[in-house]
Parts: sequence; structure tokens; C-alpha cells
Amino acid sequence: MSGSTARRRILKVPRDGVPEYRADLLAVEEPLEIRVEDKPLTVTMRTPGDDIDLAAGFLFTEGLLRGLDEVQQIRMCDENVAAVEVRPGTEPLAARVAANRNFLTTSACGVCGKDSIASVRVRSAFDVAADPARVSPAVLAGLPDRLREAQRVFSRTGGLHAAGLFGPDGSLAVMREDVGRHNAVDKVAGWALRQDLLPLAGHVLLVSGRASFELVQKALMIGVPVLAAVSAPSSLAAELAAEGGLTLVGFLRGTSMNVYTGMHRVEAGASVPG
Amino acid sequence: MSGSTARRRILKVPRDGVPEYRADLLAVEEPLEIRVEDKPLTVTMRTPGDDIDLAAGFLFTEGLLRGLDEVQQIRMCDENVAAVEVRPGTEPLAARVAANRNFLTTSACGVCGKDSIASVRVRSAFDVAADPARVSPAVLAGLPDRLREAQRVFSRTGGLHAAGLFGPDGSLAVMREDVGRHNAVDKVAGWALRQDLLPLAGHVLLVSGRASFELVQKALMIGVPVLAAVSAPSSLAAELAAEGGLTLVGFLRGTSMNVYTGMHRVEAGASVPG
Repeated sequence: MSGSTARRRILKVPRDGVPEYRADLLAVEEPLEIRVEDKPLTVTMRTPGDDIDLAAGFLFTEGLLRGLDEVQQIRMCDENVAAVEVRPGTEPLAARVAANRNFLTTSACGVCGKDSIASVRVRSAFDVAADPARVSPAVLAGLPDRLREAQRVFSRTGGLHAAGLFGPDGSLAVMREDVGRHNAVDKVAGWALRQDLLPLAGHVLLVSGRASFELVQKALMIGVPVLAAVSAPSSLAAELAAEGGLTLVGFLRGTSMNVYTGMHRVEAGASVPG
Repeated sequence: MSGSTARRRILKVPRDGVPEYRADLLAVEEPLEIRVEDKPLTVTMRTPGDDIDLAAGFLFTEGLLRGLDEVQQIRMCDENVAAVEVRPGTEPLAARVAANRNFLTTSACGVCGKDSIASVRVRSAFDVAADPARVSPAVLAGLPDRLREAQRVFSRTGGLHAAGLFGPDGSLAVMREDVGRHNAVDKVAGWALRQDLLPLAGHVLLVSGRASFELVQKALMIGVPVLAAVSAPSSLAAELAAEGGLTLVGFLRGTSMNVYTGMHRVEAGASVPG
């Protein structure tokens, strides 16, 4: 199967009237195996398309790849398998799992007693806290409509998450879709990495759903100072955003929004008493 | 941190009027490490609560645990660590990863050239296709309201997914919430396993968001014949549901819904022309 939608015969039960069989379009979900140095590293359930970006973005936001100069080649060796060859002399990527995340390696106690953020976070090469970017509520308010306009597929299936990267002026740099929110963000991250745009200083990353710890983590890894979500963030998303100096916006709907962390970037564009 | 909500000071930008600082409640997300036989098996980002059920449900729906009789004890050795002790004589659970899922073990070719469902699916002990359950559109239409009524936390944070298990008459058996949809379903699965209710013949499992491959997989593992979702299913969710004889309902809103697979269970309750 290829493409981002698949046709299927369904039974439609309308609000009023008689149930009937008809064709419907579904968002495609297929496994992508990411292979590094000839070994399977992970399998992610994703919507086909931009798979090279997805593989590159995943490896980078997980801290397993430090830059594009470490990559010899990324190629699809099958429609559902991305093979990554690292340049000779690069430290084996698998060894970095150990360095980056405690929980994958400690055999004794895991996250027991440790600060829970420290146990699962990956260190970023970029200092997002130092990014002097400011963004006005008016610019933020215009982004969801621009993301939806770009989501032609979404309007057909209702089943795909979107991630959009916007420049400081609110212009859309790139939009990617996927059944998984984290994959949509990794596709954007991989695109930016391969375009040599990192860190994404002054940019805004908008996601169509909720903001989890994982998405804040990915935003910090690519050096974007503002992460906005159409729905709610989690507690750990806000905690990690505060720790990393990221501006986290949630419930961005119409002209209303909640700013959870890094308020100074939004305040500058609004008039906020004390 | 404990509990399912956390308080945080946020900057609220209203549709009209002046932005102001105020307290807000966020859905809690924390890592849970599941340890089996003294080794960390996985870490899942979840909302604390019902963690023993989550650990049991995860192991069971992943096919790593075949029944409660294999378990000596599951206990929280830390607020974020669930330790599972298996009974002496039980095959090491880690060995079952190899037997259940090809992609975690083949070192040569991974999912290359294989049927993508076959490469990622786990075999269920229950034959859902043989479940003679029927469910009327009217009963299905009543479930989302019942789930929302049970979601007291959801109404406070807007950030939690829910999974509800309903009996053949539409009565709610159990409702669980989590920042992750798969965790909410695993909490329901673990509850049912520990109550010795499996397989869940004649039941309906309702999830608050979309239906992915993973959720269909979990429904098949616990032997529930009907999986309903408030939003869209993916292509692979529908394919696996068809293969397993599961009735998959999507876009269940008010009295309208789409039935993607296993239409015979719904048709019986409606009048559907040829």
C-alpha cells in the first residue's frame, strides 16, 4: 500500500434515515522499520510519505544522531524499511542510547527514586532558553487556520495529525501529517535537519492535538523556541518546557490560548498587567 | 507527584479582553517503568493511577503474559515503578517477545517484504470472530455520553483520553483515563484480567479518540467483539479488525456512526437494505 489514504467499504449509520453501504477514505497506517548499521533499531506505526525525513528526524530528536554529517546515506530498502548508513568513524549510534537515556540501560533500579524528567529526557545541543524570539497573540491566532488550509488530506479522512513549522512572521515553512503526532513532528524535524536549518531560532512549531512530554522534548532537540498545540499539554510537557526555556502554548483556538511556560515571549506582543 | 491533575500558573489569553495570569489544572504525565524478573522491560508515559492494572494489561495485550496464573505478584516498588514477579516455572517473559513479534528479533531483514500486519501483530488466545454478540445502533449511540459522564477528570483538564468497557446491555463496567489512549485501554485490560473476566464476550470497548492498529490489537487480545471510537480509525486498524473478526465502529457521535468491519453485529439491530 502506498499513499496517505486508503479506500474501504463501510456501513454508514446517519443521524436520521437509513443505514447504507458506501466507500470511505481512511488514513493509512503502516509500520516503518528504521534500520541502523544493518540492525533494526525500531518500528514506528506511521502514515507513508516523507519516510527519509521521518527516519532522520526520529534519530535526531532521540539524540541518536548528532548531525547530518554523521550520515552516509538514508535509503528506503523496502516501502516500509528505511536503512541508515552512518559515516565511517562515527561512534555506533546504539552506544548513544546508553548515554542519553537512563531507563534503557540501568539494569539495577531504572527510574526508581530518580527525578522523573531526568530519567527520560534527552539533552539538546541547542539552548532554546537563550532564543530572544517574541511572538504576538495575533500571529499565534492565525496559525491553526494556516495549518488546516495546508491539510488537504486531513479534510478527506479526519484521521491525520499535523505538525506545521512557521517562520517568525507566521509564514508556513513546512507541514507534515501522520497518524502519529510524534511522527508528524519527526517528519518536520528531519526536513529541517536535511535542509540544514537547525536550530530553528525564532520559529513556531504547531501541532494539531495535545502536547506531550515527548513533543516538548522534540521541540527542544531542534531548537524551536515556541511549541503551540490546539489541545491541552500534560504536566510533564509543561515541566520540561519550563526547564528548557521553551514557550508552550495550548488550547490555541481562534484568538484565545493558554500560555503555560515562557510567557515573556508572548507578553511582549500583548498588554498583560503585572 | 501523585494524582491525575496538577496545578500550574498560566497566562490566559481570552478571545476578547485582557490576558491574565491564573491557576489551571493539567493532566499529569509521568513515566512508569515496568520491571519483569528484576529487569526493566519498558517505560511508558502515563497518568498515575491504576498502575498495577496498567502493568498487567500491558504485559497481557502485548502477549508477554498469558494469564494471571503466571504472576506471583505485581507491586509498586516506587511511585513510578511496577515490579512484576512471575511464578517459578513460568517461561521467561522476555523469550516471548521473540515468539510474538518478528520485528523485535529478526536481525536480517526485519519487515522487508513481509506482510506488514503479520510482522507486527500478536496472536490472541481468543477467537473474537466466533463471538455471536449483536449490538444495536441505539445502544452504541448511548455509550459516548455515558463515558463522558464517568470522566470527571476529563472535564477539569481536557487532557485525558478515556477507555470504557460496556456490558451487552450498554451498562458501564469500568472506565479508565490516561494521557495515552493505549494506556487507558491497558488499564481496562488489566482490570478485566485481574477480575478474571477474559474473554470479554458480548462487551463493547469505547475509546475517546481515534482507533489505531495498536488499539484493535489490544481489543483482540482481551476478546472483546466490538471496538468503538469517537474519531477515525486508521487503515491498518480496519484491516486487522477485519482479519480478526472484530466489529470496528468509528466517528460515534450522537446517533450517527461508521461501521468499518464486522457489520453483521450492528446490522442485526438496524434495518439495512441489501
